[in-house]
Amino acid sequence: MQYKITNELIEKLQDGIRAKNDPLILELIGELHSTDIAEIFDEVTVEEAKYLYTLIDEEKAAEVIAWMDEDSREKFLAQLSSKQIAEQFVENLDSDDAADILSELSEERQREVISEIQDKEVADDVTDLLKYEEDTAGGLMAKELVRINVNWERNKVIEEVRRQAHDIDNVYTTYVVDDNDKLLGILPLKRLLIEPDTTRIEHMYNDKIQCVEVNDSKEHVAELMKKYDLVVMPVVDGIGRLVGRITIDDVVDVIQEEAEKDYQLMSGLTEQVESDDKVWVLARARMPWLIVGLLGGLAGSRVIKAYEDQLQVYPEMVLFTTLIAAMGGNAGVQSSAIIVQGLANNSLRKGDTWAKFFKQISVAFLNGIVLAAIVFVYGYFTESLPLAITISTAMMTVIIFASVLGTFIPLTLNRFKVDPALATGPFITTLNDITGIVIYFMIGRLMYGMFA
Amino acid sequence: MQYKITNELIEKLQDGIRAKNDPLILELIGELHSTDIAEIFDEVTVEEAKYLYTLIDEEKAAEVIAWMDEDSREKFLAQLSSKQIAEQFVENLDSDDAADILSELSEERQREVISEIQDKEVADDVTDLLKYEEDTAGGLMAKELVRINVNWERNKVIEEVRRQAHDIDNVYTTYVVDDNDKLLGILPLKRLLIEPDTTRIEHMYNDKIQCVEVNDSKEHVAELMKKYDLVVMPVVDGIGRLVGRITIDDVVDVIQEEAEKDYQLMSGLTEQVESDDKVWVLARARMPWLIVGLLGGLAGSRVIKAYEDQLQVYPEMVLFTTLIAAMGGNAGVQSSAIIVQGLANNSLRKGDTWAKFFKQISVAFLNGIVLAAIVFVYGYFTESLPLAITISTAMMTVIIFASVLGTFIPLTLNRFKVDPALATGPFITTLNDITGIVIYFMIGRLMYGMFA
Repeated sequence: MQYKITNELIEKLQDGIRAKNDPLILELIGELHSTDIAEIFDEVTVEEAKYLYTLIDEEKAAEVIAWMDEDSREKFLAQLSSKQIAEQFVENLDSDDAADILSELSEERQREVISEIQDKEVADDVTDLLKYEEDTAGGLMAKELVRINVNWERNKVIEEVRRQAHDIDNVYTTYVVDDNDKLLGILPLKRLLIEPDTTRIEHMYNDKIQCVEVNDSKEHVAELMKKYDLVVMPVVDGIGRLVGRITIDDVVDVIQEEAEKDYQLMSGLTEQVESDDKVWVLARARMPWLIVGLLGGLAGSRVIKAYEDQLQVYPEMVLFTTLIAAMGGNAGVQSSAIIVQGLANNSLRKGDTWAKFFKQISVAFLNGIVLAAIVFVYGYFTESLPLAITISTAMMTVIIFASVLGTFIPLTLNRFKVDPALATGPFITTLNDITGIVIYFMIGRLMYGMFA
Repeated sequence: MQYKITNELIEKLQDGIRAKNDPLILELIGELHSTDIAEIFDEVTVEEAKYLYTLIDEEKAAEVIAWMDEDSREKFLAQLSSKQIAEQFVENLDSDDAADILSELSEERQREVISEIQDKEVADDVTDLLKYEEDTAGGLMAKELVRINVNWERNKVIEEVRRQAHDIDNVYTTYVVDDNDKLLGILPLKRLLIEPDTTRIEHMYNDKIQCVEVNDSKEHVAELMKKYDLVVMPVVDGIGRLVGRITIDDVVDVIQEEAEKDYQLMSGLTEQVESDDKVWVLARARMPWLIVGLLGGLAGSRVIKAYEDQLQVYPEMVLFTTLIAAMGGNAGVQSSAIIVQGLANNSLRKGDTWAKFFKQISVAFLNGIVLAAIVFVYGYFTESLPLAITISTAMMTVIIFASVLGTFIPLTLNRFKVDPALATGPFITTLNDITGIVIYFMIGRLMYGMFA
């Protein structure tokens, strides 16, 4: 039942818009989900989107805007008056989505829009939500929820659920508070339906619940909801009063962002980019780590230069410089990646540092011995015994060294509250490249010295 | 309210177990969430876990087992009879969790356990679920749901919700079917509560819903639930009959796994490993890509050897071989990573291949010109004009070449239904290393030829 937006559909729609053939347009998009229509809005011109938008009913249109790409939305909203934004979008959206969209506007525009909101409660909710930092529980939460006083009679509760739940899209549970609005627990709709009519609220609600404070980080929220398999979680203020709720769909986005951030750091990009971003945005995201790699490479060239006399005597050493450097990089990234993932999903036990150290050395030794054996055989048959000994010893040493560095650099960064994923990018590769070259030439000097 | 399992707690518990001090133990863990107790079970010995387990009530104990690490659970369940597993776990768990745990046992053990299940309905559900592949909608779904016939009267519906929902932990919605069990739509509990008592079911339920078939891939399930912000999604068989439901918590795990798989491929690991896995498991996961890197490096050494005569005349060229090779690798990984993420989150538009090609070249040109300028200046002042020209031209060419390769290799892999993330690992780095060296020496020959 998933809808795929095709180029044919877009073209038919554009023809329909040119011909002002409203029945055709409605036939094409009338039944679509708002997220699918948003994809169409992202594809067509602002003028075309504006035409389509007049044909969709107001509540759905608001959802469509909420689903659009940020860039397309910015252009679209720029066409509308503050009054239109207030009446057509903000009042039709959940408070968290409305606040997210408003936070993309200039502060002046925000004030204008808020002053145009007719429903005072909505204006208050949105203003309140705009106060919180984007990356906190407050920045994720919505204000819409069903609030039940622990002292209410059952009939009053049912009546209140009907009244309060009417405008909220998804309601799974109600929140039980005391007279001071302090959160006591949750009362799922299911229990309201299945408990005998005589059970009192205070004996029905669940008081063993997880909740977060408004200023908790969104990563903490994601961790809790994931750990306890929660679909929705209440948010309280500093003194335990219920102020909002966070739903799992927002947390899914957080989890995805976290994963993408690690990936992006590893690939050597300094900002989140997409392939359809502008050329200079893409170039800017790639430049810093390329420069780091370049400086590292130049440092590597200084090392090689320092061993120039050695290379003149044993020119065959040059053949394997790149190999040894690259293998250090590869082994280092592998080790770092395991640590970064362990830190990200909390599977890394504190434990003994020495134990970790010896384990890394053991793993590297196993890998190194196989690799060293291959290059020994290769070096012996294509070059000479001294070279075979040099490259196999260097390979072993570099793999061990890079694995240990690759393990401890992210652990150290993490201890100093720096994102450990930094260690997986071009930084560790470059560092291990240079280390590899130094080790290679040092061992070369030693080995050839012994055979000379 | 999140609980952190500390070493102190574990030690106190172990003391308590040795002293058979049950009141102390219950004080320590009695109020904990089953997922926290599961963490403790993962930490202590099997004997200690078994002791703790006798103190916890049966339903919670079943949940604890479901939350345990697969390895620890395997050891724990090996201590129990098939009858115990059937009565104490399977009958107390949701069908999807029970089936997941059973699927970890040997087929013989599975049969034994199933034959010991007293409740025939549970036995049927579990047997049915075990038929589905782990990575399909059928493998993710649970059988527990509230099923409503579209022709029922409202009172009958409420009565059925109470009856059916009683044993299900989380119920947000009911599923409306016709007399042949064909899924018609969903009826959220909220609507049941807020609609006037006279509204008929057929006018209440929502028929515009997303659903999946049992054999759809779990990636497809995750994509749909993410796209449409769903908390729960019904699963139907080949002819549209309702057979189960998938909840968002299982999908969160799928999303996380997907992200980790890409990350792992990029870091050059061939299987999902954690830092506390055994030494040889870690070494095995790292070996294959290290070998690929090694073979690539050896191929690179052949290229350098082919240009040995050139190196004898211009020995300074050797200084920058590693740099040029490494920069090709870095730029290639950046390009591939952008494509892989675009494919993963569907943000990559089909569009014009030539447009993509020119865009990549433009980005690479911008990056390349800066890097080339830096190495030109460096080369000119430390070595010579011909070398400065050679390394800057080679840098420019390599960056452009690597970016284009890095863009088109994942796109091509994807077209042939191979995981595009393969392109981000040591494979692309190694390929670009070799290409870089070839380009470097070719340009070197040309440039020095012109100056000679």
